[in-house]
Amino acid sequence: MIILNDKLNEPLYMQIYRQIKEKIISGKIAEGTKLYSIRTLSNSLDVSTNTVNYAYQQLCLEGYITNKARSGFFVQRLDNQLLFNLRKHNYNKNTENLKSKEYDKPNNTYKYNFQYGKLSPNYFPIYLWRKILNQLLSLSTLENMVSYNERKGEEGLRTEIMNYLHTSRGVSCQLEQIIICSGTQSCLNLICQLLKEHSTDIAIEDPGYDGARVVFINNELNVIPISLEDDGVKLSELKNSDAKIIYTTPSHQFPTGSVMPIQKRLKLLEWAIDNDSIIIEDDYDSELRYTGKPIPSMQSIDSKGRVIYIGTLSKSLSPALRISYMVLPEGLLKRYNDIFKKYVAYVPWLEQKTLEKFMNFGHWETHLRKICHSNKKKHDVLVHTINKLMGEKVIIHGKNAGLHVILEFKNGLSEKDLITRAKNHGVIVYPVSRYWIRLEEYTNNMILLGFSGMSEENIVKGINILNKAWFND
Amino acid sequence: MIILNDKLNEPLYMQIYRQIKEKIISGKIAEGTKLYSIRTLSNSLDVSTNTVNYAYQQLCLEGYITNKARSGFFVQRLDNQLLFNLRKHNYNKNTENLKSKEYDKPNNTYKYNFQYGKLSPNYFPIYLWRKILNQLLSLSTLENMVSYNERKGEEGLRTEIMNYLHTSRGVSCQLEQIIICSGTQSCLNLICQLLKEHSTDIAIEDPGYDGARVVFINNELNVIPISLEDDGVKLSELKNSDAKIIYTTPSHQFPTGSVMPIQKRLKLLEWAIDNDSIIIEDDYDSELRYTGKPIPSMQSIDSKGRVIYIGTLSKSLSPALRISYMVLPEGLLKRYNDIFKKYVAYVPWLEQKTLEKFMNFGHWETHLRKICHSNKKKHDVLVHTINKLMGEKVIIHGKNAGLHVILEFKNGLSEKDLITRAKNHGVIVYPVSRYWIRLEEYTNNMILLGFSGMSEENIVKGINILNKAWFND
Repeated sequence: MIILNDKLNEPLYMQIYRQIKEKIISGKIAEGTKLYSIRTLSNSLDVSTNTVNYAYQQLCLEGYITNKARSGFFVQRLDNQLLFNLRKHNYNKNTENLKSKEYDKPNNTYKYNFQYGKLSPNYFPIYLWRKILNQLLSLSTLENMVSYNERKGEEGLRTEIMNYLHTSRGVSCQLEQIIICSGTQSCLNLICQLLKEHSTDIAIEDPGYDGARVVFINNELNVIPISLEDDGVKLSELKNSDAKIIYTTPSHQFPTGSVMPIQKRLKLLEWAIDNDSIIIEDDYDSELRYTGKPIPSMQSIDSKGRVIYIGTLSKSLSPALRISYMVLPEGLLKRYNDIFKKYVAYVPWLEQKTLEKFMNFGHWETHLRKICHSNKKKHDVLVHTINKLMGEKVIIHGKNAGLHVILEFKNGLSEKDLITRAKNHGVIVYPVSRYWIRLEEYTNNMILLGFSGMSEENIVKGINILNKAWFND
Repeated sequence: MIILNDKLNEPLYMQIYRQIKEKIISGKIAEGTKLYSIRTLSNSLDVSTNTVNYAYQQLCLEGYITNKARSGFFVQRLDNQLLFNLRKHNYNKNTENLKSKEYDKPNNTYKYNFQYGKLSPNYFPIYLWRKILNQLLSLSTLENMVSYNERKGEEGLRTEIMNYLHTSRGVSCQLEQIIICSGTQSCLNLICQLLKEHSTDIAIEDPGYDGARVVFINNELNVIPISLEDDGVKLSELKNSDAKIIYTTPSHQFPTGSVMPIQKRLKLLEWAIDNDSIIIEDDYDSELRYTGKPIPSMQSIDSKGRVIYIGTLSKSLSPALRISYMVLPEGLLKRYNDIFKKYVAYVPWLEQKTLEKFMNFGHWETHLRKICHSNKKKHDVLVHTINKLMGEKVIIHGKNAGLHVILEFKNGLSEKDLITRAKNHGVIVYPVSRYWIRLEEYTNNMILLGFSGMSEENIVKGINILNKAWFND
């Protein structure tokens, strides 16, 4: 028996369809049963024949019933075991099991939070961004807003990035070599697939950026840790390895903050040339140098096409934009165009176009000056306060650039102690251990302080509290 | 000799730095040479000592010179061969070689272009989208706009999608099972890495979506083609294969447009359960059905956690947004949370939030009704015109849903002939051959017509021209 309720939101044909389907699944209407004709059912339910017809057509389409010419609608056979599964289908399970323990949500509850990579909302160019978005969405032709667009990214944006990289980072390339991606990991994922033919071993800095490492591992590359010296990777270790690819952060090593000088850059290039190897240069925070000018990229001194250059907007504009870019050497373009020719663009059109206009109107340079200035002030106040309060009790690594420093301690406290004591005083500082592959090489006496997301005032207050937590307890 | 020009945009310290660096690279200043002291050089150039100091510090930082305590600045050793490379560094190459031959830009020059996946700009909710964007960018707290956000996607958006999928597609899941990605290929890439432990063989429909196939190949999965019957994949072929994963489009097979009925869905599920296999259900255009209601998903009848469900906004809202989502079975969540725990969100925050508000305010349902109505009209006029003009000379496959149909011909013309003749008359139609793996199984007498990007008027005119091109020549 079918019961219709015209007070429900559900259309009448849906109610008929659903109730018959449920009866078939529950076995109340057996296989082979002939259903009422459309006319009979519509009369008995007092609905139009169209309504019943819609319901029957849907049941036919899904295979629950079949329409035999000139004899009517019959219930189809459904396998018993599978019917059983359909019947007991039930999702009232405990949600808690599903949550990842490691799922670290941004921690916004602490006032003094030295989180790395968080920027200050005051320095996002919100007014200009909104203005450009509105201009773009007012154009009479919005074809691009509803199309699949250029798979390497918008030509206009790639041109802006090309010019910027040329001027500020010495990067020489042509438009075709630039690809816009949704974040550094998205670049690296493509690079892994691009280079798999070349080698399945990849050398990485140890310690190094763990977000890159997991991408290599998930792409089944064999990760070879290379120790660091004061001026970057230990070349002797690299040369003794089987690696034919290296992932490196030469201009501001992550996390130690060291800078690779020109001699070592040349030697690393020489290794790549002699060894038929590729250097993946991650230039993640090149915009942010507080003394001197940015150091020219490896790509700019590479005449043999050994360097893949990667950059991101995450440190200089916002990580919430999910925009990064890479510059491939000419020699890899053919394979890129080949294996990714059926891929579509990685970044939304509107966002690419907004950034393009932002750069094209000259706002990018103004913005860089502003955030460099603001982060320099934060950096200086951080370093000054640490020096003043903690003096020789700590060593500051990685000064004068980027958005973080590393503190090394000599008072016997372990990383965990340092973090716990800080937290007990209401200040969040971050571990460095996650960046090591060979954890046994880590002296376990450092923590990381990001400063870009805090005000100067809170930086001073936070360091004062930390000094108390670590040294006066 | 250093020549300064205070009319240049380049700061004076940069001019000094650059000129000394060039002299070192060109060999004009030899290794070991002592530079002028800061005071001497600043006097001779008539600039402040700070200016020279900046230049020297930068050269030190990059390793071109070194500062020996109490004796001054000396030029460092640079390897000869590498210096040679630096010197002849030159990028004036021919651009043409760099361009991919396959790089098919959207073809907007033809008036009658039956391109698949292109939508009509008139149906993008531009006014609402702009309004919501402006509201979001006016909020006083913009922390999220400058932060790394939830890696699985914004909870609010995932909730909206969960509710929508539950109502319209019968998908039962919890928030933790939903992940927002930047397009179907981005979902599939993650799935490949997620399932590599499970199996390295994947069965796919032949013909099937080539954009998925390349992702599997680039992830080094072994692709096993499975033939199609009228109601979907040939189960006997699947059972004879080694595959423990299948990628399928059951609700509207791409490209043939067939619908997998409930019996076959249950049998496919049975295969997955018995064989410890995973079904990747790509429900790419489920919103667009022009007769009856959308067919419930495979996920909705799966009680054993064998189905990964994928959906996209590309067909229903816009491909330029680059938003897709997947629903993982609970059994795969632990591994997902584990291997991707260091990944960051894939889609820009602002875009996710705009879509969330759009759905939350009820605009999504209105929009779906609108585009369904508009595309149904286009579909109907397309099918009607083809039937009227070409009658029994062609078979139309995949009617009543989605954004395309396939035409099969019996007049002896090959795919290539059909496309060429159309193009000679100014109409662009598309090949189907690209969707086949075993091209020898393709009868080579079909073409694909997408209709969503054209007006009804142009559809009628286009079909009239095509009729002439194909049958009256």
